[in-house]
Amino acid sequence: MTNHLQRANKILQRINELASISEDEGCITRTYGTIAFIEGRNKVEQWMKDAGLQTRTDNIGNLRGRLLSANTNAKTFVIASHIDTIINAGKFDGPMGVLIGLDLIEQVIQSKTELPFHIELVAFSDEEGCRFHTTYLGSKALAGSFDKAALHTRDAAGISLAQVIGEMGGDVNNLSKDAIAGEDWLGYFEIHIEQGPVLYEKDIPVGLVTAIAGQCRVGMVFNGEAGHAGTVPMSMRKDALACAAEFVLATEKFAASNKDGLVATVGKLHIIHSASNVIPGEVIGSLDIRSSDGQTLASSCEAIRKIADDICQQRDIVLEWNLIQQTKPVYCDDGMNKLLARAIKEAGFELVELISGAGHDAVPVAEVSPVAMLFVRCFKGISHNPLENVELKDLAAAIKVSENFIQHLINENGSHFTG
Amino acid sequence: MTNHLQRANKILQRINELASISEDEGCITRTYGTIAFIEGRNKVEQWMKDAGLQTRTDNIGNLRGRLLSANTNAKTFVIASHIDTIINAGKFDGPMGVLIGLDLIEQVIQSKTELPFHIELVAFSDEEGCRFHTTYLGSKALAGSFDKAALHTRDAAGISLAQVIGEMGGDVNNLSKDAIAGEDWLGYFEIHIEQGPVLYEKDIPVGLVTAIAGQCRVGMVFNGEAGHAGTVPMSMRKDALACAAEFVLATEKFAASNKDGLVATVGKLHIIHSASNVIPGEVIGSLDIRSSDGQTLASSCEAIRKIADDICQQRDIVLEWNLIQQTKPVYCDDGMNKLLARAIKEAGFELVELISGAGHDAVPVAEVSPVAMLFVRCFKGISHNPLENVELKDLAAAIKVSENFIQHLINENGSHFTG
Repeated sequence: MTNHLQRANKILQRINELASISEDEGCITRTYGTIAFIEGRNKVEQWMKDAGLQTRTDNIGNLRGRLLSANTNAKTFVIASHIDTIINAGKFDGPMGVLIGLDLIEQVIQSKTELPFHIELVAFSDEEGCRFHTTYLGSKALAGSFDKAALHTRDAAGISLAQVIGEMGGDVNNLSKDAIAGEDWLGYFEIHIEQGPVLYEKDIPVGLVTAIAGQCRVGMVFNGEAGHAGTVPMSMRKDALACAAEFVLATEKFAASNKDGLVATVGKLHIIHSASNVIPGEVIGSLDIRSSDGQTLASSCEAIRKIADDICQQRDIVLEWNLIQQTKPVYCDDGMNKLLARAIKEAGFELVELISGAGHDAVPVAEVSPVAMLFVRCFKGISHNPLENVELKDLAAAIKVSENFIQHLINENGSHFTG
Repeated sequence: MTNHLQRANKILQRINELASISEDEGCITRTYGTIAFIEGRNKVEQWMKDAGLQTRTDNIGNLRGRLLSANTNAKTFVIASHIDTIINAGKFDGPMGVLIGLDLIEQVIQSKTELPFHIELVAFSDEEGCRFHTTYLGSKALAGSFDKAALHTRDAAGISLAQVIGEMGGDVNNLSKDAIAGEDWLGYFEIHIEQGPVLYEKDIPVGLVTAIAGQCRVGMVFNGEAGHAGTVPMSMRKDALACAAEFVLATEKFAASNKDGLVATVGKLHIIHSASNVIPGEVIGSLDIRSSDGQTLASSCEAIRKIADDICQQRDIVLEWNLIQQTKPVYCDDGMNKLLARAIKEAGFELVELISGAGHDAVPVAEVSPVAMLFVRCFKGISHNPLENVELKDLAAAIKVSENFIQHLINENGSHFTG
């Protein structure tokens, strides 16, 4: 393990160095296309070059480093994560996956292993979508599913995405040329922090991701009747908050009783014209439902809608229900998962299978390639927060597991993949 | 009834005329001490003078009109309500009571009835407390319980109460001299809109107020743990909103199951840093509990606090519970209530006994005098709102009942009063 700890330490130093590059002092912020983002990307490019990779920046701004197989007709195996961040981010979300990937490739180069496939390390330019409120710009371009309509989107300062691409040296007319063609994909592997507490609670350093949950987002309005808190008897009230509260609890109960890891969250709840002596008349809320099973997700959204209808009807509250977004779950590749599970066990860790509740670059890539993901434990599951932390020994564990995994891939040249 | 309808119509015209005087155009706003307030008060004073009352403005700004008994040693019976308003008020809340009172006195004068007691009609200068966030300034001065500490309170523009009193011509050192001495009080009668839906729902024009509810106000903070809505399993959450929701429902259930007309309201509920994809970590809320029974109020506050503690403990949520205000209920005088009940029945209406959930000027007066209150039905119970409305026939009903009541008082000279 000493070797892996030393490599983990080098990776951690690089993560820290990258984290020191920020738009704002005193925090970590490198949103897509900013000077800090480009400076950070240049830093990573230098490390890639030092390792011996052929690097280039594509039109959307992804940094791509290739290590070629002697077989020029070989397919490409992509190792990737993102190097953009949210505002006031943690330092591991994204960069960790890129920099462990770089370490793995450095080992392949140093050991002079013969590659049956090309390896491409990609540092995606935009996964968080903070600047243009669009996610996966980088991975969509790589997967060939970039929607040109997004080019007209503008950031808070009124600058369009097209303009930012141009200023970074990209050509908006050549975006589609950057995609890896369907037949050239061998597979995709992403290492990422869990951003949840399961590994932390189980005291296990890494976990295998079987699926990325589908999501249903709903906006709700509960229309009751405002009234004086002192003068309207309990039996005559149409309290929009009490109604919303009943819905919050019923939703929680519904999700908790589901055996398939369904999660449902009311994250926003706002009383219009609230005052301590006024019975709430109107409440606005949000609902977020996620599941790794498409059918469970669809039937749960329907069931929760029915719960809301029933509660509102019983309380004489008028409900507005607006479906904002519905995405299907994405499944990781069975064949790659088997290899990754083997790699985890060989490294001496219990196999924990996880469903990712958060979205990742693997989502758009899954449309064109088999994907696999390894989650790394983070402190208390905290993420999108400066308190985000990964222990050195967990970085070492992730290296060890991934190294085993890559070795199996090389040995078997993807013959296990389900595709 | 024709006579009463005509008088009701005159009162309604005066209410409309007073409502046309406002700080802000297009709405009704006459907060304490403003130019609009003084203009409105001058208008009412002219009407009092026209009726034949001896008027004066006291130091806190109450307008007071006296009709004297031939017996100079007689006690004083006060008929009163307030003429200040909230911002964007309805036109009946306050002025209706003063202007029906004026009509009643006009009838006494015109009928040349011999008075066994003095009658004083008071238009209180501040009941709503909108400007200085202190309620009952006017009635506290009349009852001799004005707290001089309030003089240093400042309004939103930084002007102190003392300064406003001075600018209106009052002398802050003589405030206590305006109080009616304890032994001089015969009784106090206030006519007010219900500001609740009971009379409207029962289809009865007036109701007898037996008590004004005591109130307990609490500020609460639910401290849970924020987390990613997609990555934290239901069983690992410390959702502050779900906890608050359980409390809202339990409080509603507790109050609804109470037989003594207890009301409890969570009027404010605010999620700190809310987002649709974040499990709420911290929720701030308000609780308002009211009851006409002091023991019920005290035991209910305690029981609801216990409910909150239990829910929070079960969910591993840290609760902050800050008692902001606790006032005791005020009871109307049994003797006066009997006369008022008789007056209601004689006028041909079913006797409906009500508890006032809202506070009134009768609250401070009750410390020094027997008090009685008559509630008048308002449209759907709506108040503190431009939609506030009282039908002409209900004004007429209130006149008829109050006239009977005053006649009984004169006939019996307060001998029925409990004191």
